[in-house]
Amino acid sequence: MSKPYVVGIDIGGTNTVFGIVDARGVVLASSSIKTRKHATVEAYIDELHTELTKLMEVNDAIDKIHGIGIGAPNANYYTGTIEQGVNLPWPTPIPLAQLVSEKFGIPVSITNDANAAAIGEMTYGAARGLKDFIMITLGTGVGSGIVINGQLVYGHDGFAGELGHVIVKRSNGRLCGCGRTGCLEAYCSATGVARTAREFLEARANEPSLLRNIPTDEITSKDVYDAAIAGDKLAKDIFEYTGDILGAALADFTVFSAPEAFILFGGLAKSGELLMKPLRNSLEKNMMNIWKNKVKVLISELKEADAAVLGASALGWEAKFTAPTASAVPVAPTPATLPQQPLNQN
Amino acid sequence: MSKPYVVGIDIGGTNTVFGIVDARGVVLASSSIKTRKHATVEAYIDELHTELTKLMEVNDAIDKIHGIGIGAPNANYYTGTIEQGVNLPWPTPIPLAQLVSEKFGIPVSITNDANAAAIGEMTYGAARGLKDFIMITLGTGVGSGIVINGQLVYGHDGFAGELGHVIVKRSNGRLCGCGRTGCLEAYCSATGVARTAREFLEARANEPSLLRNIPTDEITSKDVYDAAIAGDKLAKDIFEYTGDILGAALADFTVFSAPEAFILFGGLAKSGELLMKPLRNSLEKNMMNIWKNKVKVLISELKEADAAVLGASALGWEAKFTAPTASAVPVAPTPATLPQQPLNQN
Repeated sequence: MSKPYVVGIDIGGTNTVFGIVDARGVVLASSSIKTRKHATVEAYIDELHTELTKLMEVNDAIDKIHGIGIGAPNANYYTGTIEQGVNLPWPTPIPLAQLVSEKFGIPVSITNDANAAAIGEMTYGAARGLKDFIMITLGTGVGSGIVINGQLVYGHDGFAGELGHVIVKRSNGRLCGCGRTGCLEAYCSATGVARTAREFLEARANEPSLLRNIPTDEITSKDVYDAAIAGDKLAKDIFEYTGDILGAALADFTVFSAPEAFILFGGLAKSGELLMKPLRNSLEKNMMNIWKNKVKVLISELKEADAAVLGASALGWEAKFTAPTASAVPVAPTPATLPQQPLNQN
Repeated sequence: MSKPYVVGIDIGGTNTVFGIVDARGVVLASSSIKTRKHATVEAYIDELHTELTKLMEVNDAIDKIHGIGIGAPNANYYTGTIEQGVNLPWPTPIPLAQLVSEKFGIPVSITNDANAAAIGEMTYGAARGLKDFIMITLGTGVGSGIVINGQLVYGHDGFAGELGHVIVKRSNGRLCGCGRTGCLEAYCSATGVARTAREFLEARANEPSLLRNIPTDEITSKDVYDAAIAGDKLAKDIFEYTGDILGAALADFTVFSAPEAFILFGGLAKSGELLMKPLRNSLEKNMMNIWKNKVKVLISELKEADAAVLGASALGWEAKFTAPTASAVPVAPTPATLPQQPLNQN
């Protein structure tokens, strides 16, 4: 008999959130642990196992988990490892899928957080029924998950879809966390918006702004949002600037895969027309004629707290890493709520 | 019994080249007609039918054609039509697949010329065995065919892969044929190189150059190549400038689909190290760390004359437009020489 549930795990730099999900995308129960509490990844997985087992017991889900899907930064779908250059306290590469599968005796698949969000959106959210769309996550960084013909794009090495690192300023660009300059992420992430605020406040030193009430180094994108909502001109201009850059970037992405829609996700995506109006204007101004006024820009329909777990959990239905000690789990028929196209598998 | 041959047709602005191809990619015979001789597309297809029938008769291929594949500018794989904005003498949209299928009684599929080249390269050329690559055609314009996980990317509407129209200069960019400014095509096509020559000759008015022996308006990319080969500094700098822009663009494309290789095709791709050296330098300088020194840049292995016909012909094995009058052709098993992944079909 096929097992009725999957587990989704979202590993963030601070918290690890996990939940038990059924085939309709209902999160039966969820919980979290601190990501950085343990010196070794093995100790971290031990705590994860303890807490998740408790959750399964309480929800009568022991032996009913078809697979575990994990979303994590720099997670490689093909190899099941977390690669270098990631903000986690353990040495990389981390053979995460293997370790978790060994610990739980359940098949595991992993992918990066933005890809997991795209899968979640396709399975349960704004992208239901879309075969060609691009998910853009606007958080601390800018991530992306690209879906073409119903399949997530992993690329030759499993790392495709780093659209936050397209160069949007070819000269005098801001330094990006990736070591290069001028990346989209350096402008259109939450931290990018805060950087723009600092730049604008300095460049327009004589202009009053509510943002001057906050120590410059402490300004967040939320502060900019609050000021703009209160009518602050400088803050509104920051959103204009951000939307202008993001819209031009989305126009460029369109020539690549001709998506039906972009789906925006994350804190900044909730800025409403402050961001969307300049974004749409710039998108259409920069769009090739054949796509003008044809490509939708949608906001994620998933609750942010659920989205990462849901997206990761959807991977659990096709989990592929099975540790030698894992029990042999027969391949269950794909639940009706899953996308019709199978996920891209190696 | 399955039919052993396909026909490939490449419709260019000047000539239409067509050939009969077997399952191993051998062009048994080919010929051509002028594209622009006829006032109506029906008269053009009449001549194509007459000439192709002759070719089939001579080669004992009548009733042995499994399908016809056509590569043409702005050809839409999904709809089978040639869309507007194309340099052909007939009103658009042209329901080309339907018209040709009706005329020949053979199933037809069409795609744009760059996609056809990518299919040809994947089936018979430098991309054999590659599942993730991007074909860049450097001709009068810059075209592209993107292959992800063994499937050509058509996008939501059939027009994906217009990488010649990514914006590489966000301010003071050159006017592009698409009506916008700063497109890759305005710099890295053959005509783009000629424009760079004119700009450099004007900006460096005191510098001697072999190119000054040619009337400015008549300079071609071939002239620039010849001058550079002869050691002309200004001409070599033009290739530096072109390779620098193209390399940076390819680095950006990499973050999208993480290809194993780029494959360059067309006249400019034959410029050797004049182009390739600055291109590779710029590619690696602009590349995200995780892909540095990992993505190959290859030159097409197909003869340019054959490539378009071969690429188009490969589509013929999965031709999908069947006119009501066309004879019912059973689906033959895919020949062993075709890529293992089926082409992306709607």
